Amino acid sequence: MPYEILTKETIVDYLKKTESMRKFFSSFDALDIEEVGDGNLNFVYKITNQKQPTETVVLKQAVPYLRCAGETWPLSKERMNFEIMALETHKELHPEGIPDIYHHDKEMSLVIMRNLNRHKILRGEMNQGKIFPQLADHISTFLARTIFRTSDWYLGSHDKKESVKQFINKELCELTENFIFTHPFYNASSNSYSPDLTPEDINYIHKDGRVRIAVAELRHRFKTGAECLVHGDLHTGSIMVNETDTYMIDPEFAFYGPAGFDPGLFIGNLLLAYVAHGYRQEELLKRDPLPYRTWILDTIVQTWEQFVTKFNALWEAHIIASQDPFWHYEGALADHEKLRQNTIDGIFRDAVGFAGCEMVRRTLGIAKVSDVKEIEDTEARAELERLSLQIGKELITDRQQIKSIQEVIDIATRVSPLTTTPVASVKCC
Amino acid sequence: MPYEILTKETIVDYLKKTESMRKFFSSFDALDIEEVGDGNLNFVYKITNQKQPTETVVLKQAVPYLRCAGETWPLSKERMNFEIMALETHKELHPEGIPDIYHHDKEMSLVIMRNLNRHKILRGEMNQGKIFPQLADHISTFLARTIFRTSDWYLGSHDKKESVKQFINKELCELTENFIFTHPFYNASSNSYSPDLTPEDINYIHKDGRVRIAVAELRHRFKTGAECLVHGDLHTGSIMVNETDTYMIDPEFAFYGPAGFDPGLFIGNLLLAYVAHGYRQEELLKRDPLPYRTWILDTIVQTWEQFVTKFNALWEAHIIASQDPFWHYEGALADHEKLRQNTIDGIFRDAVGFAGCEMVRRTLGIAKVSDVKEIEDTEARAELERLSLQIGKELITDRQQIKSIQEVIDIATRVSPLTTTPVASVKCC
Repeated sequence: MPYEILTKETIVDYLKKTESMRKFFSSFDALDIEEVGDGNLNFVYKITNQKQPTETVVLKQAVPYLRCAGETWPLSKERMNFEIMALETHKELHPEGIPDIYHHDKEMSLVIMRNLNRHKILRGEMNQGKIFPQLADHISTFLARTIFRTSDWYLGSHDKKESVKQFINKELCELTENFIFTHPFYNASSNSYSPDLTPEDINYIHKDGRVRIAVAELRHRFKTGAECLVHGDLHTGSIMVNETDTYMIDPEFAFYGPAGFDPGLFIGNLLLAYVAHGYRQEELLKRDPLPYRTWILDTIVQTWEQFVTKFNALWEAHIIASQDPFWHYEGALADHEKLRQNTIDGIFRDAVGFAGCEMVRRTLGIAKVSDVKEIEDTEARAELERLSLQIGKELITDRQQIKSIQEVIDIATRVSPLTTTPVASVKCC
Repeated sequence: MPYEILTKETIVDYLKKTESMRKFFSSFDALDIEEVGDGNLNFVYKITNQKQPTETVVLKQAVPYLRCAGETWPLSKERMNFEIMALETHKELHPEGIPDIYHHDKEMSLVIMRNLNRHKILRGEMNQGKIFPQLADHISTFLARTIFRTSDWYLGSHDKKESVKQFINKELCELTENFIFTHPFYNASSNSYSPDLTPEDINYIHKDGRVRIAVAELRHRFKTGAECLVHGDLHTGSIMVNETDTYMIDPEFAFYGPAGFDPGLFIGNLLLAYVAHGYRQEELLKRDPLPYRTWILDTIVQTWEQFVTKFNALWEAHIIASQDPFWHYEGALADHEKLRQNTIDGIFRDAVGFAGCEMVRRTLGIAKVSDVKEIEDTEARAELERLSLQIGKELITDRQQIKSIQEVIDIATRVSPLTTTPVASVKCC
């Protein structure tokens, strides 16, 4: 059907006209429809048959503007096509961590999928101090599979290039280019600064030419490094969890980009959570901060190290199975191991830089993280933001020198020691 | 009209049916039609009105197979679309160095363009020892303009991504991936070795794991570094010259790739010529080799240095004119200069590696260069090939350490001293 924006009132009619939904719902006369979108880009509804509560779905529809900015910021609703294509690709590569898709409609820019009603958004759960022991295992598997299996390291040249073409995602890439790599790094009108952040704090980022140069390089890498299909927005708000499962959702930013982008954003968000829990644990949750913050840092280390192990294993197995004559000689496997190490080193450098950009943009840019933003004590909040800026800046400017994930942890714990709520000493330039 | 392969017999009918050609030729009854293709990929005809010899064109038609390999090697004739699009883009950016296009026909996979009958292929001219004092100036201008103005450094994000999509050139990229970056580096059946090249000479490349690793990295860079529209095959056989002009032709390999690719291929071919003239000058042209070989090396240095100057100037002017707020603060221009330097260093490293790959693939791979291949003394030829392999290998494995174009020259003159016909001392691994 031609595009129209669905409302709570018109959704039932749409479902009735949709064959797969007629099979899914045993009746349509007692549907509970709740709008649950975070309000940034799309409308998201949870739809449940009150007579039969196991009959429940999520309907997500894109509207032709940036929802959080209003109708004056047009954004093509075709972005939903990228989400649908990415969900399908991810589902194939990592079935246990992607919700089932029941129906999609490109004209209507909508998708109907499993309601993960036994799962919650990771960011909210982490804000409550909950631990997910399998998080690193699940995320690293998702990263290794999706990065490796959509890349030139695995795919044939034609298939990979066709995929690059399909995933030319102009509009949402441009949002990232602006809101992660550009606006937060100068005094752009779209930025927002929390009340107790001082001009000196902001200048700590804005008046350091090394930051400007490094971010321009990272932005260029983002724009040109067509290595693999990246999720494009893999923060803790795009991940749904419970004790046993980890789901990746909302891949509308998916495009062919640098392999370090998804790990970088994920690590950046965990570091923001690490900083936030320097306050949250003692002040809000009334706990010793050590165990939870240690879990966060362990999760960062484990995610990266397990990603490396899994990515390596996939690639090595592929080289052996493919009998590629280029890698078929005495000593080839040892040489290939060096190539993998060099490649992983490059992914790591990118990831470190992207993590730093994420920390800065979530502090100075338009889109904050609730981890920090929710904190009502504005002085304490500004203090956490200072720490985020300090860690973020160091990751950005020193990414070429940082050689291991442990060094990233060392930076985080030097700036914000594990056991205390520290005071950042911010020095500009 | 539907696709058919034109022949000398059917060309006249085709021209008569083509409006622009009816205007171009005052009569069709005395056309001289000569097939002049190099035979690798396409059919190329020079068509001249014998009654009015200024009425002359070149017609180039793609056939649905790799011409040099025969009909058993299918190759989509749609490759001509990439040549047409690239010619149009290049013409807009560098009008003085691209032939006028009179007509193109995507269904017929053909283009009719100016017959550069006062110009000759640079490779043949250099084989004769001719000097083109403006070559470096012209090539560096072409490189700076086409690299800068098709890149993210200049274009808006949407325009650049649209261009990337248009130039997804699967088949011809795959040829490059195979014939430049893969087959020459192991004992592939498509390789061909000149008679006096010994197994030890070949193993000097094939049995060195450092080469294998570095070439895999360069291939990955070729496949993923979507920086700008590259010509894709800028060797001295794709350049037509006379005393005053330099034309770039045959851009059917055009795609979005790393900025270092075109400079690298060009420099690699000049280095092959430099090596060849260690023999050609004394033995074939009966001259002191010093002046000509010095001109070649000067041309390499000048091409790179002038490229850097021109690329820098275009980018700096653009940043100033665009008033990009990201680069609008006290000290911004000095910071941007550092960014440009870092960027150019990266382009240079890539270019050095690609130059090395070109030297090796033109020696061990299927497609030779006449500079060396024409030499009938097979022992002398093998000696030159050894020198090419030695220089090529050093550029490939040491590309990260080579910091300036002068160091490239130093490697070339160390391996093959300027004034003598030297003996290579090839050591494996």
